[in-house]
Amino acid sequence: MVPVFLVIHEVKRTINEILIMNKAFDLIIFGGTGDLSLRKLLPSLYRAFLENKLDRQARIFLSTRKPDDYNNISDIAEKALHEFLTYNEFDQTQWSLFKDLIQPLFLDLSDIDKGWDEFVAQMEGYDDRDRIFYLATTPNVYGSTCEFLSEKSLITPNSRIVVEKPLGFDLQSAEEINAKMAQYFTEDQIYRIDHYLGKETVQNLMALRFSNSLFEQLWNANNIDHIQISINEQVGLEGRAGFYDKAGAMRDMVQNHLLQLLCLISMEPPAKLDAENIREEKIKVLKSLRPIIDEMVEKNTVRGQYQAGTINEKNVPSYIEELGNDKSQIETYVAIRAHIDNWRWSRVPFYLRTGKRLKRRSAEIVIQFKEVSHNIYSKEAGTPIPNRLIIQLQPEERMQLKLMAKDMNTLETKIKPVSLNLNFTTENEGFRSFAYKRLLLDAIAGNPTLFIHRDEVTSAWRWVDPIIEQWRKGQQPLQAYEAGSWGPEAANELLSKDNRHWIDIEDRSED
Amino acid sequence: MVPVFLVIHEVKRTINEILIMNKAFDLIIFGGTGDLSLRKLLPSLYRAFLENKLDRQARIFLSTRKPDDYNNISDIAEKALHEFLTYNEFDQTQWSLFKDLIQPLFLDLSDIDKGWDEFVAQMEGYDDRDRIFYLATTPNVYGSTCEFLSEKSLITPNSRIVVEKPLGFDLQSAEEINAKMAQYFTEDQIYRIDHYLGKETVQNLMALRFSNSLFEQLWNANNIDHIQISINEQVGLEGRAGFYDKAGAMRDMVQNHLLQLLCLISMEPPAKLDAENIREEKIKVLKSLRPIIDEMVEKNTVRGQYQAGTINEKNVPSYIEELGNDKSQIETYVAIRAHIDNWRWSRVPFYLRTGKRLKRRSAEIVIQFKEVSHNIYSKEAGTPIPNRLIIQLQPEERMQLKLMAKDMNTLETKIKPVSLNLNFTTENEGFRSFAYKRLLLDAIAGNPTLFIHRDEVTSAWRWVDPIIEQWRKGQQPLQAYEAGSWGPEAANELLSKDNRHWIDIEDRSED
Repeated sequence: MVPVFLVIHEVKRTINEILIMNKAFDLIIFGGTGDLSLRKLLPSLYRAFLENKLDRQARIFLSTRKPDDYNNISDIAEKALHEFLTYNEFDQTQWSLFKDLIQPLFLDLSDIDKGWDEFVAQMEGYDDRDRIFYLATTPNVYGSTCEFLSEKSLITPNSRIVVEKPLGFDLQSAEEINAKMAQYFTEDQIYRIDHYLGKETVQNLMALRFSNSLFEQLWNANNIDHIQISINEQVGLEGRAGFYDKAGAMRDMVQNHLLQLLCLISMEPPAKLDAENIREEKIKVLKSLRPIIDEMVEKNTVRGQYQAGTINEKNVPSYIEELGNDKSQIETYVAIRAHIDNWRWSRVPFYLRTGKRLKRRSAEIVIQFKEVSHNIYSKEAGTPIPNRLIIQLQPEERMQLKLMAKDMNTLETKIKPVSLNLNFTTENEGFRSFAYKRLLLDAIAGNPTLFIHRDEVTSAWRWVDPIIEQWRKGQQPLQAYEAGSWGPEAANELLSKDNRHWIDIEDRSED
Repeated sequence: MVPVFLVIHEVKRTINEILIMNKAFDLIIFGGTGDLSLRKLLPSLYRAFLENKLDRQARIFLSTRKPDDYNNISDIAEKALHEFLTYNEFDQTQWSLFKDLIQPLFLDLSDIDKGWDEFVAQMEGYDDRDRIFYLATTPNVYGSTCEFLSEKSLITPNSRIVVEKPLGFDLQSAEEINAKMAQYFTEDQIYRIDHYLGKETVQNLMALRFSNSLFEQLWNANNIDHIQISINEQVGLEGRAGFYDKAGAMRDMVQNHLLQLLCLISMEPPAKLDAENIREEKIKVLKSLRPIIDEMVEKNTVRGQYQAGTINEKNVPSYIEELGNDKSQIETYVAIRAHIDNWRWSRVPFYLRTGKRLKRRSAEIVIQFKEVSHNIYSKEAGTPIPNRLIIQLQPEERMQLKLMAKDMNTLETKIKPVSLNLNFTTENEGFRSFAYKRLLLDAIAGNPTLFIHRDEVTSAWRWVDPIIEQWRKGQQPLQAYEAGSWGPEAANELLSKDNRHWIDIEDRSED
């Protein structure tokens, strides 16, 4: 589906280029003065505004139930921009124009008597506009908010609702939320965000796979030894203790981000690059994931919790200390060996891992190709190291292809690894990937390609639930790992028993 | 075969590393004060000396029949080094040591009564040394030189003879020379040089192909659309008129360099990386080349001759003017569509071209992969350009892989070509590829891997001869092309009738 508006953002603009603006819309952010809204959504909207991608007639409502916030909405927004914008983006003149778009909305999301009629009044006469409801709140008010929107007849055919991950706590709760939303919105009005999908490098995954015959031919079990997907964090709880200690890494990261990356890297080529075709292929992957149940859980998963340690030469406390509850059995680290039981990926392990308080922040996908079928080089000349394609999403968005070549520093026949590199940041003048900006603009424009379908959520939980269930039974120990390490030793053993090892960001220079 | 000596030339030497020197040898350069010797061989030997790769007891004889040269051999050599060394390599202290290795040899190569006994006297007591005879002369004295060497019993079991391309003028003359040498030397004592094979990037061709499973899988007719091999020169006759106007581009470049590159890029993987196995595979390619005979010649070959034109903003004369003979029908440009009739390359065209006075100097191999089997991108998103691997030998030794990726400068789904680059010169600190140095050291060490076997010469001529023969019959016009262009229009048509086009060095930035 082609977006309703045409985004024109060429670095080298020609003078004749016509700037086509987005059409006017109403965006209502529920939880408008909350962390997500101030930290991510407002800066993203401001950036889109700077790039002329927001119509000047658009209205952005920030809902709040605090009178103080209501009365100072402009100051709050300005302060947030100062705090969360980077790269010297804040511009006083632009801000004075942008702030005209922002309006406060006094609203209690769990009480229809508080503010909802005033909300209706605000919307009067704007029925034909695209109307985007953004639920930047905790999931416990999703239901009531949808209900009240419906009761007050605020849901127009041009309305969409955007919700944040993680959607639910397990299959059952996710289904409840989905069912609730489905009462008031059709599935194509529901935009479930996984902000990882808004990263340009993740978009690039599809471009790489599907516009290069070179990879097309190699992308299967005949040529690929295994695939690693890692999202390593340095941060700890970041004030999310209440949520995190209920969820853990599995729900917070694996169920959504890691499985989404897994889908994009492994799915069959869609017939067309539209939301429906992509979603179908992703669901096929999720349904082909070999279930990890019962006694298989111990063999194929590792769960860990960080101890005190040192990161960037600073001492950091253990999870237990940070949380202030020494009984927590929640995992801050997960490693999984997964298999996709289909023709393309037969016997190819997918190693997934994610954790907090790890040595370095990095997110990357490693495609490890098989060895050459026969080594014609002598021992002295060196052994070919299998080829490797690394797609890095963080800290930099870049791509690296590891090949073997002749060692040019000697006349002897010696081979050594070389890297072909592409850094998207340096390659593309002015390139900055802001996932939320992208997804917000897509939601505003009604482009669902990068959002998650209900069936995906369901399928992901269906695979994740039995693992968590087995863990809950308490038969698998929670592995301790030192903050500032690469995770528990058991995660290394998960690969070493397959004669493989994790490719860490710092292994680069070595091989 | 492992070289007799161990070359240690690591950029980052450790203090403990033991420098293993070459053992003492005698190198006799026939035509020692000629162009090849002074321009290429002496500078190469000096470079090897700088790198401690020549034993200090080694002797380098420069043969000459000019008394003046004989008396001033040291001055001649020093002058040549000053003229032909680059990169500020000349060092007075090193030269004062290096010159002790050089000795003049007064010798007439077509008269056994002139100087040969003195030569014998010089060699007395040095029988156990490796003895390398380098024929840096015109082929017409090859026979007599070999004969005299034999007659004077100068050919020891440790002797080798090195000869320069092009070996002969056609199959018959090449066979005559080969037969003559075979009378006095065994085949494994004969080192036929093709200096292209001494380029490190050419060596790298094999490393790339045979130590990367990624390429192993793709290197065949299923995945490759076609291959281009180009050696484009800017120079004209360079004082070689006498030779060149008899030979032409086909004999001077295609028969040796281009066919050797073709062999390396297309041969089956040898079981081992030694001279014998590689040679066997190369010969198999040459024998699988589809013969281009009779009326096929016109359809599959283009011959051209340059007219006056402009190169680097300087006017240059036509070939006819440069030569001073307006009757010459010799080609200064050749383009050929070749096919290798075997399983791997079924229906994959190999486009070869070479010419003088072209727009830019470049030597490169282009592996053009096939299109993706199905384009899932919309017209607006862009059409995937087929992947391309470019291995450049000149002017820089580098490698480029052209892929498609997401256009990171726009939020729209747009794809664009990107390049993964590897520049061997910048990547390898201190890397400089000196083909002659490499080959001389190999000849001295008795490592035959990079030299041409008699059967290769024979097979190459067997394929080339019928084309030249058909041209000689005069039915195919000599195409004019302007100096400073990319060659005759007919060469473009050779590809355009296959719906393909030459990938020129300057096309890079465009696609």
